Amino acid sequence: MNRATTEFVSRQRIGHLATADRSGNSVVVPICFANGENDVLYTPLDSKPKSVAPNKLKRLANIDENPSVSVVFDTYSEDWNKLAYVITFGEAALLTDADERNRAENMLRDKYPQYETYLSVGAPIIRIKISRSKSWGLVSN
Amino acid sequence: MNRATTEFVSRQRIGHLATADRSGNSVVVPICFANGENDVLYTPLDSKPKSVAPNKLKRLANIDENPSVSVVFDTYSEDWNKLAYVITFGEAALLTDADERNRAENMLRDKYPQYETYLSVGAPIIRIKISRSKSWGLVSN
Repeated sequence: MNRATTEFVSRQRIGHLATADRSGNSVVVPICFANGENDVLYTPLDSKPKSVAPNKLKRLANIDENPSVSVVFDTYSEDWNKLAYVITFGEAALLTDADERNRAENMLRDKYPQYETYLSVGAPIIRIKISRSKSWGLVSN
Repeated sequence: MNRATTEFVSRQRIGHLATADRSGNSVVVPICFANGENDVLYTPLDSKPKSVAPNKLKRLANIDENPSVSVVFDTYSEDWNKLAYVITFGEAALLTDADERNRAENMLRDKYPQYETYLSVGAPIIRIKISRSKSWGLVSN
């Protein structure tokens, strides 16, 4: 991502993550996330309401069998001249490096004070390496 | 969808649609939409900014080879006690029935006055038949 795109993404509070199983059955969910360096995003298995336990999430099973994912960041306005979005494509995996996971957890806690309540210490974190993005609109504003 | 879920979805101005090709490469985009009867959603190929012509959209190519899609509707609040979402799963296809397409176009124009500018008369419309949904949070409020 270029600098304007990265800055636009950094300003967003949520994104929407699509994963798919190997048969192409997709699921899309809102996610909280933090921007790492080199076009990496981190999104945790947090304690926000879910219908199943975090380790049973469909998104995790999908990533395990098919790491190809897409995340969109967008702002809606009734003035459609102000619409803006960034669509990203990348590869997702559960973080296994303990140091990187710790750094990512700290970044997430810095961005979202809510994680004092909603994130377990040592929670699993998904790492998404973005390989391609498309943007439109007031991304630089 | 039950009545509360349908009403929550109807109140939303946008959803996020995930499609995937048959290899499981997904793309997620913000969409405008209208609710039809019997758990059907309509989303048009409108004239909002896109990086390619409407008929070249990746979502269309994906639906053609893999009709299985997911759409999420959610409201974000910094008070995470107020988060709410509905995740839906269904089958998508380009509308071929002229009467249904006309009705859907009218519904979309009623919901979004912006379409006076941003929707061509007779524009292609995607029909999504929802087969399953999951919801959480203040969906009934």
